[in-house]
Formats: sequence, C-alpha cells, structure tokens
Amino acid sequence: MKFKLTLMYDGTNYHGWQRQKNGVTVQEVLEDVLYGVFGAETAVVGCSRTDARVHARMFVCGFSADTSIPADKLPFVLNAALPPDIRAVKGETAPDSFNARFDAVKKTYEYRILNTVHADPFLRNYAWHYPAALDIAEIERACGLIRGRRDFRCFMAAGGKAKTTVRDLSELSLVKDGGLITVTASANGFLYNMVRIIVGTLVYVGAGKLRADDLTALIEGRDRRALGLTAPPQGLCLVNVEY
Amino acid sequence: MKFKLTLMYDGTNYHGWQRQKNGVTVQEVLEDVLYGVFGAETAVVGCSRTDARVHARMFVCGFSADTSIPADKLPFVLNAALPPDIRAVKGETAPDSFNARFDAVKKTYEYRILNTVHADPFLRNYAWHYPAALDIAEIERACGLIRGRRDFRCFMAAGGKAKTTVRDLSELSLVKDGGLITVTASANGFLYNMVRIIVGTLVYVGAGKLRADDLTALIEGRDRRALGLTAPPQGLCLVNVEY
Repeated sequence: MKFKLTLMYDGTNYHGWQRQKNGVTVQEVLEDVLYGVFGAETAVVGCSRTDARVHARMFVCGFSADTSIPADKLPFVLNAALPPDIRAVKGETAPDSFNARFDAVKKTYEYRILNTVHADPFLRNYAWHYPAALDIAEIERACGLIRGRRDFRCFMAAGGKAKTTVRDLSELSLVKDGGLITVTASANGFLYNMVRIIVGTLVYVGAGKLRADDLTALIEGRDRRALGLTAPPQGLCLVNVEY
Repeated sequence: MKFKLTLMYDGTNYHGWQRQKNGVTVQEVLEDVLYGVFGAETAVVGCSRTDARVHARMFVCGFSADTSIPADKLPFVLNAALPPDIRAVKGETAPDSFNARFDAVKKTYEYRILNTVHADPFLRNYAWHYPAALDIAEIERACGLIRGRRDFRCFMAAGGKAKTTVRDLSELSLVKDGGLITVTASANGFLYNMVRIIVGTLVYVGAGKLRADDLTALIEGRDRRALGLTAPPQGLCLVNVEY
C-alpha cells in the first residue's frame, strides 16, 4: 500500500530533510520510526530537499508499507514515536505511482526577515535579523522584476544539478507587519538555494547595495556572483505543496 | 548610577529568572555579562521570579553601576555578549530608589493553549498542547467568576510565601484564533504559580472536570486541592510590567 504523509517540522536541530553522513536529518529520523512501526525498512521520498535549519509547515512525503494501520490513524502512531520537533499531521493512501517529489506541481516558501534594531529571542531560529534600514518600495519593485517565467540560473547556488534552469515563479511578494517582513515565493519548482538567493538579492536592493533598475540585465547575464548574498537558512519555511 | 533595563527572553533553556544552585538562570547569565562589561560584581533585581521554561516578552530589572556607557547604548553593549535567547531591548536611568520588583504596580501574563488534534512543532516550547475538546463559553464564564479583587489562596502552590493572598486580578480573558487559545491575566501581583493554577482550572472547566457554577464556593474554600492541575510552564509568558 502506498501512503502520502504530511509532516510539519522545526528544522533547527536537523541537517535538512535528505539523509546524509554528516548529521541527523528528518528523513533519517522518520525512516527509523517507520522501521519500528512496520518492522521493515521503509524508504521515504520527500517533496523537497530542505537545507539544514530550514523549516516546513507542510512537507509531503510518500512510502510503501504492508500494514493494517488505516492511513488516517498513521499520524497518531508515528507521533507517539517521533521527537516533538517533527509532527505527522495527515495520512492518506495514494496511487502506487505517487512520487512526492516529481508529482508536485507547485511549492510555496515563506522567508522571514526581522528588520528591527534589536533581535527577538523568539525568532532567533525563524527569521533573519537584519537591523539596517530597508526601502520596502524598492524591494517590492524588485519582486515585480524577478517574478514570472524565466531562466533563474543566476539564482542557483554552485552544486545545483537541474537539467533546465527555467522556472515559473508565479508569486513573489512581501508583507510587512511591524518590523517583520515575510516574503512569499511560489513556483512549479525551485533551483538549489533559489529562494535564499532571491531574498539576499531583495535585501541588497532594499539596503541600496543593488539597484532594482539593474536587475533585469543582471538576471539575463546569468551570473550568480552579480547578485546578493545567500540569505541564512533559518528564515526559510516550506509552507505549501500542491499535487 | 541606577539603571532600569528591559529584557526579552526565551526561557526554554533556563531554570527561571532567579539565581539558584541547580541550573543556569537568566539572572546568572545577565550578572556574568554585566561583570564582564563593568568589571565589578553587579547585583540585579528582577520584576518577577519566573519558573523554569517560562518566557518573557517584557522583563524589567534594575541595578547600580559606575559606568560611562549611556543608558540607551547599554542594550547594544550587552547584546554583543548575551546569548541569542536573551536580548536587552531598552536601557534607561532610574531613581536610586528604583526597585524592579516592589515598584511594579501591574503585571500581565499570557498563557497559550494549543487545542488541536496534533501538536505543532513550532509551539512545542511555547504552548500547552491539550487535544481534547474544550467548551470555550464555559471557560469564559469561569474567567468572569475568578476575575476581580479577592483572596487567591487556593490558586497558590505549596511553597508560596506571600504575606497576604489577596490580589486584584483586573483582567482574565481569552482569545481563540483557530486552535490557539491565549489567556491573558493582569494583576497588581501574582502568587506562586497563580497563573498556571488558574489556567489549569480553566482547562478543567472547559473539559467538564469542574463546573463553573461550583467555582465561587471552591475559591472561598481556599483549598488548592479542590482546583485544577498546574498548567505546564512553557505556555506562560510575561508580556507587560507597569510602574
């Protein structure tokens, strides 16, 4: 039986989703719990490879298991064994062909920037504290120039292995609530570190280190080095995945 | 020179405010940093003794120091040395007579209850996850019966050392936003564990384990054991102190 499982996780204490040698990952913790529950090795496919310290309010994964546990009861069984920074919130059955990564048609990330003089202890793991002044109108103008279907090669970090770097960034917008700026980005797919490089570039524009007017030419130049720094991971959160 | 310093802290990793032998406290960490900055032992008086794992969005403390650092620059100096879960957000000078504890005329706490089927990893250290159904209208009725100036002895944990147990609980109300219930309590002073016992009692009423109709008689009976359990510490946050 194929299962589709929706998780939420606080990524602070993990080296991202994907299993790796150098640190504990969410995939590894979940697969260990599934082994305990099903009594068999269970390989999980995740919707995305989140980086170390990146969070997810909605993360979808899929796996096959031979079990009599009904899909909607699975979260209760798993939550009894998962650590409190990972919660299963929804269990469903899925067609055998379901692939959580390749079947996703749209993903949405949020990135939080705390633009205040002093940092907030409650956001230390959930936002990028940037104390200098930011020109919000210029950042919004830059969002309009980056948004759309285009070649995002310049927003891909070294190490990215995408076959094509064209993506449809259908949403790139921001909301400011007091000192907290939330950038929302939706696309049919994201390149390696794409959201974090976009946010770093937006902050460079807001701080006057890059001109919004120059962005279109810089993007067409396809040179990563012409853009802003990669924003730190803890501000990033995967908030929606559509199939 | 007497200083009045406003802090915010995430209490997750501390054994409360007050210096003690068995664990690291916020007071101890702050006094160590002040020693480093001023080069002299600096005793700090805090507005409240928060319990282990309890948070503060506004915590006021006072101390005397012989320094040329202007009061408004003090937060910048201290934040360079404080850990990221404690931030100084405001520095002021104060009269020599200022006592952060005894001069406080009103304090406000918030307590968060997450009333959802599954817990939220992002609130694991900031709310009490209570998955069973709660009757909000009954809880609101109970708030009205507890609120006011009265003897709160039954809401004081063993170990409380108050001379009088009469307090003026000027506000006790709740706001429900989806599954998140925030209880707000303001008073001229609080007894040991008073907010947590009130919240535990409100949850007992909401879950049908206690009747709101019986509360007035139970409060007049002044017996702690007749009321609800003490709500867990991580849902509690000191949010305002008035002088």
